[in-house]
Amino acid sequence: MIKASICTIGDEILIGQIVDTNSSRISRAMEEIGIQVTRMLSIGDNRDEIIGNLENELRLSDVVVVTGGLGPTKDDITKPALAELSGAKAFVENETQAGIIRKILKARGLDLLDINKAQALVPETCEVIPNRLGTAPIMVFRFPEDRFGHKATLYSLPGVPFEAEGALPDIMEDIKDHFSLTSIFHKCVMVSGLAESALSKLIEPWEDSLPEDMHLAYLPNQITGVRLRLSIYGGDREDEERRIDQRFEMLKPILGDRIYSYSDDTLQNAIGALLRGTGKTVSAAESCTGGMISSLITSVPGASEYYLGSVTSYAVAVKESVLGVDPETVSSHGVVSSEVAAAMAEGVRKLTGSTYSVATTGLAGPGGDETNPVGTVWIGVSGPRGTITSKRVYGNDRKRNIERFASAALDELRLFVLKDMATSE
Amino acid sequence: MIKASICTIGDEILIGQIVDTNSSRISRAMEEIGIQVTRMLSIGDNRDEIIGNLENELRLSDVVVVTGGLGPTKDDITKPALAELSGAKAFVENETQAGIIRKILKARGLDLLDINKAQALVPETCEVIPNRLGTAPIMVFRFPEDRFGHKATLYSLPGVPFEAEGALPDIMEDIKDHFSLTSIFHKCVMVSGLAESALSKLIEPWEDSLPEDMHLAYLPNQITGVRLRLSIYGGDREDEERRIDQRFEMLKPILGDRIYSYSDDTLQNAIGALLRGTGKTVSAAESCTGGMISSLITSVPGASEYYLGSVTSYAVAVKESVLGVDPETVSSHGVVSSEVAAAMAEGVRKLTGSTYSVATTGLAGPGGDETNPVGTVWIGVSGPRGTITSKRVYGNDRKRNIERFASAALDELRLFVLKDMATSE
Repeated sequence: MIKASICTIGDEILIGQIVDTNSSRISRAMEEIGIQVTRMLSIGDNRDEIIGNLENELRLSDVVVVTGGLGPTKDDITKPALAELSGAKAFVENETQAGIIRKILKARGLDLLDINKAQALVPETCEVIPNRLGTAPIMVFRFPEDRFGHKATLYSLPGVPFEAEGALPDIMEDIKDHFSLTSIFHKCVMVSGLAESALSKLIEPWEDSLPEDMHLAYLPNQITGVRLRLSIYGGDREDEERRIDQRFEMLKPILGDRIYSYSDDTLQNAIGALLRGTGKTVSAAESCTGGMISSLITSVPGASEYYLGSVTSYAVAVKESVLGVDPETVSSHGVVSSEVAAAMAEGVRKLTGSTYSVATTGLAGPGGDETNPVGTVWIGVSGPRGTITSKRVYGNDRKRNIERFASAALDELRLFVLKDMATSE
Repeated sequence: MIKASICTIGDEILIGQIVDTNSSRISRAMEEIGIQVTRMLSIGDNRDEIIGNLENELRLSDVVVVTGGLGPTKDDITKPALAELSGAKAFVENETQAGIIRKILKARGLDLLDINKAQALVPETCEVIPNRLGTAPIMVFRFPEDRFGHKATLYSLPGVPFEAEGALPDIMEDIKDHFSLTSIFHKCVMVSGLAESALSKLIEPWEDSLPEDMHLAYLPNQITGVRLRLSIYGGDREDEERRIDQRFEMLKPILGDRIYSYSDDTLQNAIGALLRGTGKTVSAAESCTGGMISSLITSVPGASEYYLGSVTSYAVAVKESVLGVDPETVSSHGVVSSEVAAAMAEGVRKLTGSTYSVATTGLAGPGGDETNPVGTVWIGVSGPRGTITSKRVYGNDRKRNIERFASAALDELRLFVLKDMATSE
């Protein structure tokens, strides 16, 4: 199996100023095509460190992906270090990148300075993949075989996360063209409403019956649920796809509607997929989730087709005056109650005229008492055929509670819409 | 200066399943006490890799902090690897940690299994710092001088982020007790409403006049603005504090109200600080920001004291029916306009009865035209003395636009409240 190292260069990572998200994105892209990332390293903007460490990584790995240190200012020294490492005698201008640089600066209304022009210069020892999203070109250095017969390729990417991410498809194509990769085939299911441990218990017999060449991974996420991924190395693609589909088919009777997608997906996307093109709409009434449900729903481009809006009724008075929750309901059942969750859901549905609605009322923390400890949430969902509510109790951490509440509410909404649509058919 | 390496162990980081946030937190804690982190490394759960790489880090650095690989299951092998690396002949039980483990399992209603008991066993070669937040103990290995006279200490922390973070104060104390550190003193100002480059141009003369022993760092964040940090190495603490305060004092005439805090802070916290205890309240009307402003305001514990709630009016009909925006205003000026932003801010203020309000209407993307390209936002803020609006144009990325819109809106709200309160006094 081809081995890879990922190396980020930049003092801002070492001093903890920014979290390195590039390495994880690059790693996922590598894994998808069957390359094993065995090391990730972060070092500073220092010539000796860069050269010494990259020499070492090139010895250990077949592919070395470097990000960062390509900015126009003098503290960015990755390019001269790579020139030295690869034995370049001169720098040459890459015309395509020079054109992109001119275009980008013009669009931003900036003058083309020497410092910008210099970004199109690359060591003569590299090939260039143009970077259409930024000024620094992507450089590919193919190092010759060393005395142990080991050959390695180094890819240098910009450190800006969306530029690095944008470069990945081209890099993966280049790797596929130049290395003979073990073929690998993955497929996913997204599962909601079950913690990793509970899910693993539930599907244990299914997991134990998997053939030896299938590898199962649990990829949990607080907001989107657990992604289950089956992988097969080697073999014929069509055949593998069929075999994995069969295995996923056997999961359906066990997990039912908890399976919400067969690709890397989110609950808000799944809700969008259900509603798009049906003319049906949704709205939200939030209390403890403070706007996060609405924020997640509107993170989907084109959500305006089915999403009308929401009310965050943080104050009880707003629950009553805007959502029309009866003060009597609040005083007899308490704000965190099934009755208030139902009234909020019904209130926002009436207010916006949406087909469906979802509501939350709970306690993210601090505070809490015996009846409603911190981490308690009541969720209400409402539609043309009525309203249902449910309760969850999570932990003590405010931030995590808000995320879990929002995720549970989206999942309740999804299941409610799914059932309602099935009944209407 | 004392040098440190941070090493995370775990396949889940290498395959890109999780982003490593521990390294950046550890690094910031190190920097605060004057230790320079020169390398960060991630490797898999593999004995040879762990031993080989840690030997190398111990050679290069004075302090090596290791996180991860301490779970109870058999794929976690950091502990046996550290035992081997440090020449331990036996494992001993740490009684304090054993007590914590019993307590944690009891609280979760779980039985104490052998696998749990084993977590309190540590190599005889280490000292233990109890981990009160989880089952795996924190281990300290003080390696003797090597033949080059180099001595190093290795700290092993759990990989769970809140447990790792919780261990940091004890680790920093231990480092202070065992190493003679260069004293370091930092102070920050938070600056809003200016990009890093614009800020750097504006304060260039001030920056150039800084004494040589003061080091300035720009720490930008999309949502909270730029954190400017001044550091001095060595010297007397009180004297340094006074000298840095004097320099920050000189920044005030240049930046004015763009300075919103003198600690590591957020705009939503600054708004909370202004409103808390005044009896004044705030509400929000969101369109393109989709709930993020509300979500940020309610991320502050205790926000219910001054935050009444919000309306996300994603559909034009909701802007009209719930917020009372005149259909005439929409048809003559367009949804993305100063007039609609003002009407939304006034509408939500009236609806909730809040003292102040903030509203956004814009285009996060996709879409857009000549008048309103993608990235355009109109922000309205309203209060007892009237309403003002302002316009910003950002870039093409939907997610980044939503964050920038929300940040700009919070900043406008903060400046508006600040001015209004100053006038009332």
